[in-house]
Amino acid sequence: MTHLNLLVGGPTSEWPDQLAAGKVSGDWIGVDRGTLRLLKMGITPLVAIGDFDSLSADELSLVKRSVTDIRQAIPEKDETDTELAITVALKEYQSDRLDIYGATGGRLDHFLANLWLVLKPRYREFAPKIRFIDRGNTITFYLPGEYELQKEADKKYLAFVPLEKVDHLKLLDEKYRLADENVPYPISYASNEFVGETGHFSFTSGLLAVIQSRDTH
Amino acid sequence: MTHLNLLVGGPTSEWPDQLAAGKVSGDWIGVDRGTLRLLKMGITPLVAIGDFDSLSADELSLVKRSVTDIRQAIPEKDETDTELAITVALKEYQSDRLDIYGATGGRLDHFLANLWLVLKPRYREFAPKIRFIDRGNTITFYLPGEYELQKEADKKYLAFVPLEKVDHLKLLDEKYRLADENVPYPISYASNEFVGETGHFSFTSGLLAVIQSRDTH
Repeated sequence: MTHLNLLVGGPTSEWPDQLAAGKVSGDWIGVDRGTLRLLKMGITPLVAIGDFDSLSADELSLVKRSVTDIRQAIPEKDETDTELAITVALKEYQSDRLDIYGATGGRLDHFLANLWLVLKPRYREFAPKIRFIDRGNTITFYLPGEYELQKEADKKYLAFVPLEKVDHLKLLDEKYRLADENVPYPISYASNEFVGETGHFSFTSGLLAVIQSRDTH
Repeated sequence: MTHLNLLVGGPTSEWPDQLAAGKVSGDWIGVDRGTLRLLKMGITPLVAIGDFDSLSADELSLVKRSVTDIRQAIPEKDETDTELAITVALKEYQSDRLDIYGATGGRLDHFLANLWLVLKPRYREFAPKIRFIDRGNTITFYLPGEYELQKEADKKYLAFVPLEKVDHLKLLDEKYRLADENVPYPISYASNEFVGETGHFSFTSGLLAVIQSRDTH
């Protein structure tokens, strides 16, 4: 099992405490300003991706001096730097689990582009391997099936979030249950909660995100 | 023309400067903690909506003493407090323009529930009247048609964001153009820019958001 982490360039104010403390284990891929932030924490990423045009000359020099494998997305391929990073992690490094940090806060067009990556045909099959983590939220993705969720100790809320039409959604043992719901368009069933330490759900078509969250203010 | 503002309970760190400075003109509706925050800025909302169960006894007393019209969503109607607030603003007060603050940052299940409100049949026709505003982003919504956008002076980036299947999307005079695109699932065409002060676009079916944004870090 290969676990990789990805740091993209969103605001550090949204980082979870363990990332800010440099305590996230595993190898890293850096995207744009994320690469510089890793280097400043003493972490050398396996791969750095981006055109780095927002970095100063000194910052760019640090990146080039430190990272052996530097790449840039080709705009003609209709692929963003973050998408290239995910492709490298999942296909080249065959990562079984990809945790993405720095994708929330700040620009909402960036957040939505990241959230909806998994709807693209070339990423859909990899959706269950991708996780977004920030200081108050963990987002995971599910293809049709039956699942057991584990409650995260520091999170209170549980949300079921069909990203598209989802059929026969059943929430079996959560605080608020659904017997058998056909969801015709994207919706965020927010503010549900675990009863105990696990929760079970299932659905038969479409793609669904689960968000565990807590209040951070 | 009636313009109303709505303040929901997301983190104040995401407020635009003019809200933090108390300089947003017009009448207000407060939702949950948003009501308390308005009162503390010296603004008495027309209506306060919520169960206020996260407020202290003193805070609740201040709300009850200050606001004449206090209401609560009925969970059996499958309506959230924010949805009730939007219904009151658009149907009861017949607002032509509803600016919603405090809907971003913090819990992502809340943000997505707010963003996707306009996909619900009972809100879809009102989508063009609703705007979400935070310190780095303005989100507006469009039903099929031909439009001219005005660049916001403090924003650099422009994103076209189909929230569902959208047909014949044409970006006519922006930095990155689309001749005639059928978009099969939600996507965020991020990091586009205006050329000059206006931009023109059109599409023939579906619902589309436009996000003007700037870097805030």
